[in-house]
Amino acid sequence: MTSCHNAVSLHEARKVAIFGGTHGNEMSGVTLVNLWTNNGAEIQRTGLTTKPFITNPRAVEKCTRYIDTDLNRAFTSENLSAPRSEDLPYEVRRAQEINQMFGPKGSPEAYDVIFDLHNTTSNMGCTLILESSKDHFILQMVNYIKRAIAPASCSLLLYEHPILQYATSRSIAKHPIGLEVGPQPQGVLRSNIFESMRVIVKHGLDFIELFNGGMEFPPCTVDVYRVSESMDYPRDTNGNIIAMIHPDLQDCDWEPLNPGDPMFQTFDGRTIFYEGSTVYPTFINEAAYYEKQQAFVMTKRETLVANGVKASKI
Amino acid sequence: MTSCHNAVSLHEARKVAIFGGTHGNEMSGVTLVNLWTNNGAEIQRTGLTTKPFITNPRAVEKCTRYIDTDLNRAFTSENLSAPRSEDLPYEVRRAQEINQMFGPKGSPEAYDVIFDLHNTTSNMGCTLILESSKDHFILQMVNYIKRAIAPASCSLLLYEHPILQYATSRSIAKHPIGLEVGPQPQGVLRSNIFESMRVIVKHGLDFIELFNGGMEFPPCTVDVYRVSESMDYPRDTNGNIIAMIHPDLQDCDWEPLNPGDPMFQTFDGRTIFYEGSTVYPTFINEAAYYEKQQAFVMTKRETLVANGVKASKI
Repeated sequence: MTSCHNAVSLHEARKVAIFGGTHGNEMSGVTLVNLWTNNGAEIQRTGLTTKPFITNPRAVEKCTRYIDTDLNRAFTSENLSAPRSEDLPYEVRRAQEINQMFGPKGSPEAYDVIFDLHNTTSNMGCTLILESSKDHFILQMVNYIKRAIAPASCSLLLYEHPILQYATSRSIAKHPIGLEVGPQPQGVLRSNIFESMRVIVKHGLDFIELFNGGMEFPPCTVDVYRVSESMDYPRDTNGNIIAMIHPDLQDCDWEPLNPGDPMFQTFDGRTIFYEGSTVYPTFINEAAYYEKQQAFVMTKRETLVANGVKASKI
Repeated sequence: MTSCHNAVSLHEARKVAIFGGTHGNEMSGVTLVNLWTNNGAEIQRTGLTTKPFITNPRAVEKCTRYIDTDLNRAFTSENLSAPRSEDLPYEVRRAQEINQMFGPKGSPEAYDVIFDLHNTTSNMGCTLILESSKDHFILQMVNYIKRAIAPASCSLLLYEHPILQYATSRSIAKHPIGLEVGPQPQGVLRSNIFESMRVIVKHGLDFIELFNGGMEFPPCTVDVYRVSESMDYPRDTNGNIIAMIHPDLQDCDWEPLNPGDPMFQTFDGRTIFYEGSTVYPTFINEAAYYEKQQAFVMTKRETLVANGVKASKI
């Protein structure tokens, strides 16, 4: 990486993958990847190879999130370096295979970009998930996508946190990017969600093509929501959930939650109010997060500065 | 059953059950039944015994629809009379147990009323599912509930069909009644859906209490949607789905679908239009029905006449 005028030179992004079915019941990604596997014309771009790939085929077949363990938490260095064994959970073995094909994670051979396609039951709209505030290539890509889809909008979620960050499937790429589109129930395909996801991937690939083709992207700022904390459901002494997301908070992803705002409603009708500084909740009432003791994720707004970037030909 | 003035005398309804978790990932019923199992005050009524019951505990534990086979299709006479065996699918064994406890189906010992609590990912609002146009007790109950919850509304779905009707858990009762409330994703508990279901059960129990207490319910008419046909997704020659519910039809449960209206949108952007006489679709894009080859259920509107009813003390 070398600086040149306003733009940092970055390697071209020649190897691109699109992952679907990292969670087997998130149907937009599963359907799009299957579609593009049969006919890749829509995702072909000059100067790059784009590989659509179903990451958890057994979970897709059963239309379930996972078989043994969450694949999207399985790409830890411990798992990836574990001796191969049939005794390992299915998703750990699968993570090792995927790491062989698209990584190895952290190596020069790793894929340049992986788009990982997800759905959520939360009312998050179109969300792009970033794993690093320092990945200027991705910051420029999401800035490009936001402009390209306007007046439609797209939120940017920065999952860069010492504890809450997790070892995603896409994390084996040099530039990982998650797409999270909702609300959509698990096991359901809704045309509006499907089309939104399709359009975002299109613009993401366009950006890479332009970048590889020599276009220089000037410095810019990017407004993100940075994950700060996780909020569990209220529970009794046996660990059983005793309250639901309050109707005033339900479906209000990305809206400010201020001190004193209703947060939960207990089954006996009592309201539990939020205490703390203003946050922007997201992943509110996501089906898959009940088992993770997570009623919603709290974020804080932040503006990142992206360096200008251009492709280095060397 | 004897006729007296305007009202038919029917046996009192003393034994009532409320089933939750017939599908283990439909959270409103699971949560309400667990709540009432811990504290039944809310469902106690004079002159009746009300038993809240989780029908598929293993599916509830795994938060999945079922373990081996759909419990809500398992109450066939063939299954219920099969010799007991550990080799039978879990839900068939469970159906036999439930039939012992709350039936036997078709016998004088069977429970009088079973409320079976369900959620759907479809935008069906509150729906009461009837299994017979001749069950005047249930017709009067749903008429009572509709009036009690006004101005909120509640649709009545009549599942009385030579082929499409299926052997439900509740079918072992003398008077079976299904509650189907949506939209709610599988594995999610939404406060609005939870409260709607709770209110309907309350009014249903109130009706039984009044009936047992001697109140006479005069003849009335009841507008229902009668199931007429099932519509599958368009598929290719390999059986793969090639289209989604059209955005103009999505979430439009109970609204008329007229000849020439958009019905599906193929993945390559083509619209498939409805042909046939006007119907009222429901269960549009229900997650659990993909495996049943059912994109939606078509219904026709019909007005039923309910006899007046009163409790017979003999």
